[in-house]
Amino acid sequence: GFPGPQGPPGVKGDSTPLHRSAFSMGLGSKSSVLGNVPIRFTKAFYNEQRHYDETTGKFRCVIPGLYQFSYHLTVYMKDVKVGLYRNNTPIMLTFDQYQTNNVDQASGSVLLHLMAGDEIWLQIYGEENVAGIYGDNINDSTFSGILLYPDKE
Amino acid sequence: GFPGPQGPPGVKGDSTPLHRSAFSMGLGSKSSVLGNVPIRFTKAFYNEQRHYDETTGKFRCVIPGLYQFSYHLTVYMKDVKVGLYRNNTPIMLTFDQYQTNNVDQASGSVLLHLMAGDEIWLQIYGEENVAGIYGDNINDSTFSGILLYPDKE
Amino acid sequence: GFPGPQGPPGVKGDSTPLHRSAFSMGLGSKSSVLGNVPIRFTKAFYNEQRHYDETTGKFRCVIPGLYQFSYHLTVYMKDVKVGLYRNNTPIMLTFDQYQTNNVDQASGSVLLHLMAGDEIWLQIYGEENVAGIYGDNINDSTFSGILLYPDKE
Ligand SMILES: [Ca+2]
Ligand SMILES: [Ca+2]
Ligand SMILES: [Ca+2]
Repeated sequence: GFPGPQGPPGVKGDSTPLHRSAFSMGLGSKSSVLGNVPIRFTKAFYNEQRHYDETTGKFRCVIPGLYQFSYHLTVYMKDVKVGLYRNNTPIMLTFDQYQTNNVDQASGSVLLHLMAGDEIWLQIYGEENVAGIYGDNINDSTFSGILLYPDKE
Repeated sequence: GFPGPQGPPGVKGDSTPLHRSAFSMGLGSKSSVLGNVPIRFTKAFYNEQRHYDETTGKFRCVIPGLYQFSYHLTVYMKDVKVGLYRNNTPIMLTFDQYQTNNVDQASGSVLLHLMAGDEIWLQIYGEENVAGIYGDNINDSTFSGILLYPDKE
Repeated sequence: GFPGPQGPPGVKGDSTPLHRSAFSMGLGSKSSVLGNVPIRFTKAFYNEQRHYDETTGKFRCVIPGLYQFSYHLTVYMKDVKVGLYRNNTPIMLTFDQYQTNNVDQASGSVLLHLMAGDEIWLQIYGEENVAGIYGDNINDSTFSGILLYPDKE
């Protein structure tokens, strides 16, 4: 007899899964800036994967890889002394002094390779219980992070 | 006869993301900073896809996905009150006060998920017709955006 | 009859970024901020590919493509006048004035398409031999870069 029809196509080629992890949060009316605990940013510009927990103020790494973190803070009423913490260790610190009638903006960014379970947050450092970080309906203070390079599998 | 066997797996995917959209613009001599209209940045550091229109001052989303927008503004002569607008709505606002002999830098960044057709721009907010945003040959003020995660198809 | 021929190959796999180049450096105790030469950032937050050379202060492009560069500088004791240089040409400049008791933060970022061999660094511009860029154990000044879109092959 004749040969049968052609077989079905093969399966789709290999690829690294599309690993995505990102958040972009602002100080909102429910946010809190207190000493000795993570600053809680509660106004979500983007938090689809919910790897940033607005109830704790911490980003928790689910996908290992290289991340970019950045923050932009309104400096108002008091000096700002803030640290980017990784698992209870401050690894980058930003200081901006306030003077009367001279609201400022302070910002920082860094690339960090994270393992699954690593936690990243912003926190006031030093003995201060309050800081001049400010947010309202016309002054945003923001904290963002994004997975740039997932680890190769 | 019977159908043949299934074909072999497809080849491995490209090592290069195919969806690209980015711009990085500065205030130049033809730029304009006026009230009630988008700030027009005309000095191109990068605008290959031309999704930023320097005649209107607007970025128009062609590829849906997650974008990062950032700006760094020289604060000179006057206070700076600027908003990042999405389709006529200010979604992030930055305020920096100027004092004599104290030029400052104000910056902001945010991650936003955009649909095709969404427009993003910077604009002075409030009643002001002028702002202290400044750029010349030794002072850059910039506005950049980049597609980080295109939507899955 | 005989089985039919083998089916066609599967479709191509999804795109996967394979090309990686990134650095994130801070001013450390071995860093140097002098006039007429690149600022040397020696505190590595990330420099896995070692495309940033802490002995020269220069990033050297190995993988052609679109890069994002950003810096965040503590302004202390003196004004800051800094340029982002590409192959001896300053392409972006940041100026922030210092006033007594008013430490500031100045930042900049830009997207640049680079060819292999291009060099990028930060340097004081003008006639100054010193600048107010400051870093210590509680004040970070940082310089970062990342390959966002490698050129298509
Ligand atoms: Ca100010
Ligand atoms: Ca200043
Ligand atoms: Ca200040």
